[in-house]
Amino acid sequence: MTLIENNDHKAKSILNTLYPRTGNAWRIGITGPPGAGKSTLVEKLAMECVKHNLSVGIVCIDPTSPFSGGAILGDRVRMSSLFLDPKVFIRSMATRGSLGGIAKATKQMCDLLDAFKKDIIIIETIGVGQVELDVAGIAFTTIVVLVPEAGDSIQTMKAGLMEIADIFVVNKSDRDGADKMVMEIQSILEMKDFDRIPVVLKTIGTEGKGVTDLYKSILEHKDYLKVTNKIKQRMQSTIQTEITEIVQEHIDKQVWRNPKIKLALNRFIDNIINGRQTPYHAADKIYAIWKKLGRKI
Amino acid sequence: MTLIENNDHKAKSILNTLYPRTGNAWRIGITGPPGAGKSTLVEKLAMECVKHNLSVGIVCIDPTSPFSGGAILGDRVRMSSLFLDPKVFIRSMATRGSLGGIAKATKQMCDLLDAFKKDIIIIETIGVGQVELDVAGIAFTTIVVLVPEAGDSIQTMKAGLMEIADIFVVNKSDRDGADKMVMEIQSILEMKDFDRIPVVLKTIGTEGKGVTDLYKSILEHKDYLKVTNKIKQRMQSTIQTEITEIVQEHIDKQVWRNPKIKLALNRFIDNIINGRQTPYHAADKIYAIWKKLGRKI
Repeated sequence: MTLIENNDHKAKSILNTLYPRTGNAWRIGITGPPGAGKSTLVEKLAMECVKHNLSVGIVCIDPTSPFSGGAILGDRVRMSSLFLDPKVFIRSMATRGSLGGIAKATKQMCDLLDAFKKDIIIIETIGVGQVELDVAGIAFTTIVVLVPEAGDSIQTMKAGLMEIADIFVVNKSDRDGADKMVMEIQSILEMKDFDRIPVVLKTIGTEGKGVTDLYKSILEHKDYLKVTNKIKQRMQSTIQTEITEIVQEHIDKQVWRNPKIKLALNRFIDNIINGRQTPYHAADKIYAIWKKLGRKI
Repeated sequence: MTLIENNDHKAKSILNTLYPRTGNAWRIGITGPPGAGKSTLVEKLAMECVKHNLSVGIVCIDPTSPFSGGAILGDRVRMSSLFLDPKVFIRSMATRGSLGGIAKATKQMCDLLDAFKKDIIIIETIGVGQVELDVAGIAFTTIVVLVPEAGDSIQTMKAGLMEIADIFVVNKSDRDGADKMVMEIQSILEMKDFDRIPVVLKTIGTEGKGVTDLYKSILEHKDYLKVTNKIKQRMQSTIQTEITEIVQEHIDKQVWRNPKIKLALNRFIDNIINGRQTPYHAADKIYAIWKKLGRKI
């Protein structure tokens, strides 16, 4: 897992060997704004899975500064009740600021947990942003967790988040406005076109209330995807993204690590600052150099 | 601008022609969580610039669903007081879900406004996420706007946002906790290593309070970057990112639009789903096909 996170080339050969063992785990994405109680809900959902004799792998994606590189929350301080359970494995992953990289690394973490025969994999994203949307592309069932007070911001959030959810959860539903929030989500959903209208559930994560219903909804969604064979579409698009990213990363490395191109790039940047060249011209030149290098790279 | 937003190839040649006219505008990035009052502050800051006889270009980056494609807020409903001012130009830009693309398009919008002799360019990002951080890389002065109530979430936000700010603004500072918030930011800043410790200011955007100080702080920061020649570093890194993105986009197109590769990709995806191949193997094969095509592409 550390090899994957560090994008070490050894990870590739390990994953390549293990890949044929994958394909059994159900991959669940849990996302939503900070403070929605996602961690607690993940903890309770994992316990529910264990109760049904399923093994669980949890991947937490921490928001990391692209500048300082440190994860805010470590897995040590989170989900304390699960740490001693042999059926649950938890791994936090720092995001390192590279977005394409996160989606790929998360997919690879899931593949690894899948190969080690976890029945359920829960991917939790901390914080809001593109990461959430990317990660949803890896999950088979995506759960968006909101709180009653999020009403004000639902207009802002619905872009993206509304479309990726297979299940909505209004957590901390003992607070004021929970039913209003459920209705608001439902009314937004009604305006849209779905093959299957997402379920909206209420939970109280800290008390475990509604978690059994959430578990059932996940199984229902799993059945739906399998019966309609929509699972194949989701897998196709995930795999396509993954292959594309691996190839592009490889090509990018070949291009930007080439000493001739490095040299040219630095010269061009100076030229541009001094007004003697434009970025577009520089890009054309670099492409030409690289093309000339051709098969030799 | 529409050509840029649509990534039309004609934009490239126009920008290439106009590029030599750029280099005069000071580029200011304004970012922060939704509800911090950024739009109002941008409006008042633009008015302050006009008062000093400077022309202003404003680029608003709207969060757009990568699925539905519609911007939430149009420029029509925003910053109404500025619309009739001939010295202010406002353009909203939908983000279309492509992240690298946003940074490049924003940079190009700024180049265009710069070529048309705007003195000040204000880039406002709506919503939180990677976009904010990317956009900060384009600005010369980055302002992070927070509100007194954000205290709870400052621990979450500081990842990334703390490092990109040249100036912090605690807006809506007539509310409770404004001074506490200022102190909290300052105490976090003290723990870090800076060449120049970011300024922390209080404003009340709706009343225009503190906006003159903000304007002065921007000028001070501009002087600082020029005197220390740090502006050159910022420009180098922006230009490098831009060239890299143009080249990579061009290569990616060449690769993925190639009919042989398209065909192979689809076949490989099927193989992978049926357990006969791995994504890593598929990526290697595609790279090999593409390398074989070599100079012919």
